[in-house]
Amino acid sequence: MDIATILGIIFGVIVIIGTIQYEGNIGLFINIPAFAIVFGGMTAATMIHFSMGQFLGIFSVIKKTLLHKAVPPQELIRRMVNYAAINRRDGALALEQEIPKIKDGFMIKGLQMLIDGQDVESIRELMEMEVQYLEERHSMGKKILDFMGSSCPSFAMVGTLIGLVSMLSKMESPDEVGRGMAVALVCTFWGALAANLIFLPLGGKLGQHSKTEKLSMEMITAGVCAIAKGESPTAVREKMQIFISAKRREEVKAQV
Amino acid sequence: MDIATILGIIFGVIVIIGTIQYEGNIGLFINIPAFAIVFGGMTAATMIHFSMGQFLGIFSVIKKTLLHKAVPPQELIRRMVNYAAINRRDGALALEQEIPKIKDGFMIKGLQMLIDGQDVESIRELMEMEVQYLEERHSMGKKILDFMGSSCPSFAMVGTLIGLVSMLSKMESPDEVGRGMAVALVCTFWGALAANLIFLPLGGKLGQHSKTEKLSMEMITAGVCAIAKGESPTAVREKMQIFISAKRREEVKAQV
Amino acid sequence: MDIATILGIIFGVIVIIGTIQYEGNIGLFINIPAFAIVFGGMTAATMIHFSMGQFLGIFSVIKKTLLHKAVPPQELIRRMVNYAAINRRDGALALEQEIPKIKDGFMIKGLQMLIDGQDVESIRELMEMEVQYLEERHSMGKKILDFMGSSCPSFAMVGTLIGLVSMLSKMESPDEVGRGMAVALVCTFWGALAANLIFLPLGGKLGQHSKTEKLSMEMITAGVCAIAKGESPTAVREKMQIFISAKRREEVKAQV
Amino acid sequence: MDIATILGIIFGVIVIIGTIQYEGNIGLFINIPAFAIVFGGMTAATMIHFSMGQFLGIFSVIKKTLLHKAVPPQELIRRMVNYAAINRRDGALALEQEIPKIKDGFMIKGLQMLIDGQDVESIRELMEMEVQYLEERHSMGKKILDFMGSSCPSFAMVGTLIGLVSMLSKMESPDEVGRGMAVALVCTFWGALAANLIFLPLGGKLGQHSKTEKLSMEMITAGVCAIAKGESPTAVREKMQIFISAKRREEVKAQV
Amino acid sequence: MDIATILGIIFGVIVIIGTIQYEGNIGLFINIPAFAIVFGGMTAATMIHFSMGQFLGIFSVIKKTLLHKAVPPQELIRRMVNYAAINRRDGALALEQEIPKIKDGFMIKGLQMLIDGQDVESIRELMEMEVQYLEERHSMGKKILDFMGSSCPSFAMVGTLIGLVSMLSKMESPDEVGRGMAVALVCTFWGALAANLIFLPLGGKLGQHSKTEKLSMEMITAGVCAIAKGESPTAVREKMQIFISAKRREEVKAQV
Repeated sequence: MDIATILGIIFGVIVIIGTIQYEGNIGLFINIPAFAIVFGGMTAATMIHFSMGQFLGIFSVIKKTLLHKAVPPQELIRRMVNYAAINRRDGALALEQEIPKIKDGFMIKGLQMLIDGQDVESIRELMEMEVQYLEERHSMGKKILDFMGSSCPSFAMVGTLIGLVSMLSKMESPDEVGRGMAVALVCTFWGALAANLIFLPLGGKLGQHSKTEKLSMEMITAGVCAIAKGESPTAVREKMQIFISAKRREEVKAQV
Repeated sequence: MDIATILGIIFGVIVIIGTIQYEGNIGLFINIPAFAIVFGGMTAATMIHFSMGQFLGIFSVIKKTLLHKAVPPQELIRRMVNYAAINRRDGALALEQEIPKIKDGFMIKGLQMLIDGQDVESIRELMEMEVQYLEERHSMGKKILDFMGSSCPSFAMVGTLIGLVSMLSKMESPDEVGRGMAVALVCTFWGALAANLIFLPLGGKLGQHSKTEKLSMEMITAGVCAIAKGESPTAVREKMQIFISAKRREEVKAQV
Repeated sequence: MDIATILGIIFGVIVIIGTIQYEGNIGLFINIPAFAIVFGGMTAATMIHFSMGQFLGIFSVIKKTLLHKAVPPQELIRRMVNYAAINRRDGALALEQEIPKIKDGFMIKGLQMLIDGQDVESIRELMEMEVQYLEERHSMGKKILDFMGSSCPSFAMVGTLIGLVSMLSKMESPDEVGRGMAVALVCTFWGALAANLIFLPLGGKLGQHSKTEKLSMEMITAGVCAIAKGESPTAVREKMQIFISAKRREEVKAQV
Repeated sequence: MDIATILGIIFGVIVIIGTIQYEGNIGLFINIPAFAIVFGGMTAATMIHFSMGQFLGIFSVIKKTLLHKAVPPQELIRRMVNYAAINRRDGALALEQEIPKIKDGFMIKGLQMLIDGQDVESIRELMEMEVQYLEERHSMGKKILDFMGSSCPSFAMVGTLIGLVSMLSKMESPDEVGRGMAVALVCTFWGALAANLIFLPLGGKLGQHSKTEKLSMEMITAGVCAIAKGESPTAVREKMQIFISAKRREEVKAQV
Repeated sequence: MDIATILGIIFGVIVIIGTIQYEGNIGLFINIPAFAIVFGGMTAATMIHFSMGQFLGIFSVIKKTLLHKAVPPQELIRRMVNYAAINRRDGALALEQEIPKIKDGFMIKGLQMLIDGQDVESIRELMEMEVQYLEERHSMGKKILDFMGSSCPSFAMVGTLIGLVSMLSKMESPDEVGRGMAVALVCTFWGALAANLIFLPLGGKLGQHSKTEKLSMEMITAGVCAIAKGESPTAVREKMQIFISAKRREEVKAQV
């Protein structure tokens, strides 16, 4: 679970509710037509822009973004170095017993090909294709979230315009402008809040996760290929350490 | 027919009309000069920007975007594997009987060249040229829709300014501002709605269709070239499966 | 002459004048200081941004954009196929008699080099250099029009601010705001109209023309080089048809 | 001296002052706090963004942009053709006497290396490095001017907000809004004017100068290298003419 | 310490406070809910967008940006020339005594590899990898600052909307609008100020530092590799001088 995302959302909600209560009353901002137009309009535009499958997949994308848990690179190196040692000592088939302990589907697929005795080049090609496919899937998720983030303020404006036109056309005296304007501006508030606190930052986080996950997969690919070539645990460690910073590299040395 | 597009438009219209009726009266928003300036101005600017042919072609582009029906990639693979089997068993000429059953013009062209006995390289070259041409035609459609989407709010502003200037210059007392402002803001409403509910999302959908269709055509190209080389149905399937995700690949295996 | 551009401008002007007359009075919008600040300011900024030569050249660029007449690609192919036939039958010198009938300077230059007996490589190099030079000249024209289009609304805002500050500082009561505001907003109106109806779409059209003209010149280059190599009319046609769509290709076959 | 820049600034100032005087009174716009916040804030942000050296260099960059005088390419070709003739007739050392007559430091450096008898490849490498360095220096100047242009309206908004908050919090009745608003909007006026009449167009001009100067230097490099290879004046002219348009090429032929 | 950054911030604060005091009263702008919503909202969005580690690292990034002290390139060249002389005279091991005097971790690492007798290619590869890693770390810092800069005005708008809605819904007469509006606009003020005086310029400065530091590291890499090849002090100087401008090069010649 990504602590920063959860903390950020909680902290943001507290700040917003606190400010609203300090200045007025949260009841003012609970406005059904405002929700309908901002979130309904955004949903409609997102359905028109993307396909049904992409649209329905957005919830699983958001859930993954919130619950995403990256394995630290040092841990990845530690594991692959162990597998290299097992491979050297007992042969590739001995790795079969390790597979049930692994959760990461990508690492399982790599080791399975290694156990099946496929040659290094076809292992590398298949694993790199998976990395590329994941990247495209993630970039689609980010694209949808960014579109939702840019769509919210637009429909908020549409909602505010509906409110203003209705209010202005039926008001009797300028004294009523204030109250009607307040209601109309609630739409703009929700559009700005949803875009800037939820959709745009979540899209950014998905981009960060995508980078991290791509790095992990590239490290696993490098490790599996090195094991497939029968290289020593030390050589496997060195090939995987290229991907991490000098400072973290020392920590890894201590662990193995 | 693309369900998401149709559902999105219907849902969006319901949300907008519902909100308008809840807050006021839809009659307020039916305003001929507002329609004239937003859609007339946008049409004029689009004609100046693009050529007559491109401008008139926009309706068929929108129709195609709404009615577009992609053949699922597994279906494409299944067909091409069958053609490979026929080609192996009875020779390329036996494929002649299959052609009347195919609807996709691109697949027909590829198979026809195969039956005509053209060499693999010239088949690949011609088919890739078609893919590139389609991409350019689609990107032109997306460019027109995006221009329309950015033009609508601009002419909406022009319309609102005309309304404001007219209203302000003939009003007698500030009490009249409200009603006049309501009429002027209806232009801004239509500009924002047309851009964000119709033109920008349709442009985005066209971009999605373009990607899907390009992928299909690349898969067909890979398949036809493999058949032209006389490869086995299994080899044809493997070459086409490279383009789809691991999860879908398994489904295909089951079908063939 | 480009019909769409002319029709678009006429249609746009009718829509704008119609709406203005319906809502108020066109006299309100004829405002000398507004013209001075929007078009004067834009002219000044354009002079500062570009060189004197580029600035003065903008009128010929606009004129060309309005009067541009592209030769249809089928016509180009038909002519070059004829020249190939003449070249085969009577030799390159016989093409000399065709030159006075040609209007396109680029085609004349190409044929002249062919008649002069220059080798294929130097003909291709020189013609490609011309294409590149034309592209840069066109992209400069588009850059100037786009700068003008982004400059108009900025100076419109400057003008509206001048009007507002002057009006607000001398008004006696809030009842006068309306009339003064109307005058100030006329600037914003002209800036938005000039940018969105004239400069930005014209810049877009210039970009379209540039693409079309580049394609024509590339087709002529391909044709002249094929003739210079002494290829047959059929080979010349095939080399030039690569640049046009499959649908149009059939029409050409029928004509030749 | 660049006539268009000077004329543009003068014309722009006349248009602005004329409109102000026609609508009100220039005294309204002379407002010390507005100048302080727009130009002070912009200066502060520019110092934070760039280094001290880059910040102080901006005045010499602006001066150069105003006083920049490009040598026409035909003149460059004429000179280099003369040097080629001298080199052929009297040897490279005879060029020593020409150097005191040259003002352009880049041409002097090129000829000096030629006189020193350095080989063609090291001359070309050094001259190309200079071109690249100049480009980076110019692009830094453009970057600073563009940042200033985008910073001005932002601090203008900050200034207007300070004015509005102060005015609104101490006003007794809505009748005073007008006068206070006028003062606050003067900030926005100066920000929009400085950005759109001065900084953004000057940044654009610097970009144009950079292109022109780069072309000149590339022509000189081509010329010096051709002379260093001992090529004939005609060959030198042809190698340098590649960089200019066909129309100008004929003029050059007439002069030499 | 970067003088321009410090001076810019001090100067900017003086200008802002001076203008506020001249026009009103700084007390008006000290508003706890405004700070809460602008800086709290921005912090929440930044936590959602980036990971916990990246978020906490932003303070050390800002500190480094303020305190960053680049070693002048001439100084770098002088040192490396000395090391080259020592290497030639007494061998690589004699450089061991120089290392404690060096502060720059990157130069130490380079020399250490040289002393350890690693071959030129692996030294270059490792040093270039470090350069690339630093660039990515810096670009992440710039990305966070730019996101904070774009997030501030968005939450300022949210805060202003909260203030407006609360104020408008409880006001009794239009005379109260002024005071309430003043409070609401304070949010917009802080958002615009924080973005344009602090976050966006600091992000820009980080980009400048990154460029400078990358250049230094590339110069050190070139120098260490030249020393590792056993080249003469003169050759080392020439290889490193390629990275600096002609004007500075002469100064270096005088010093060595």
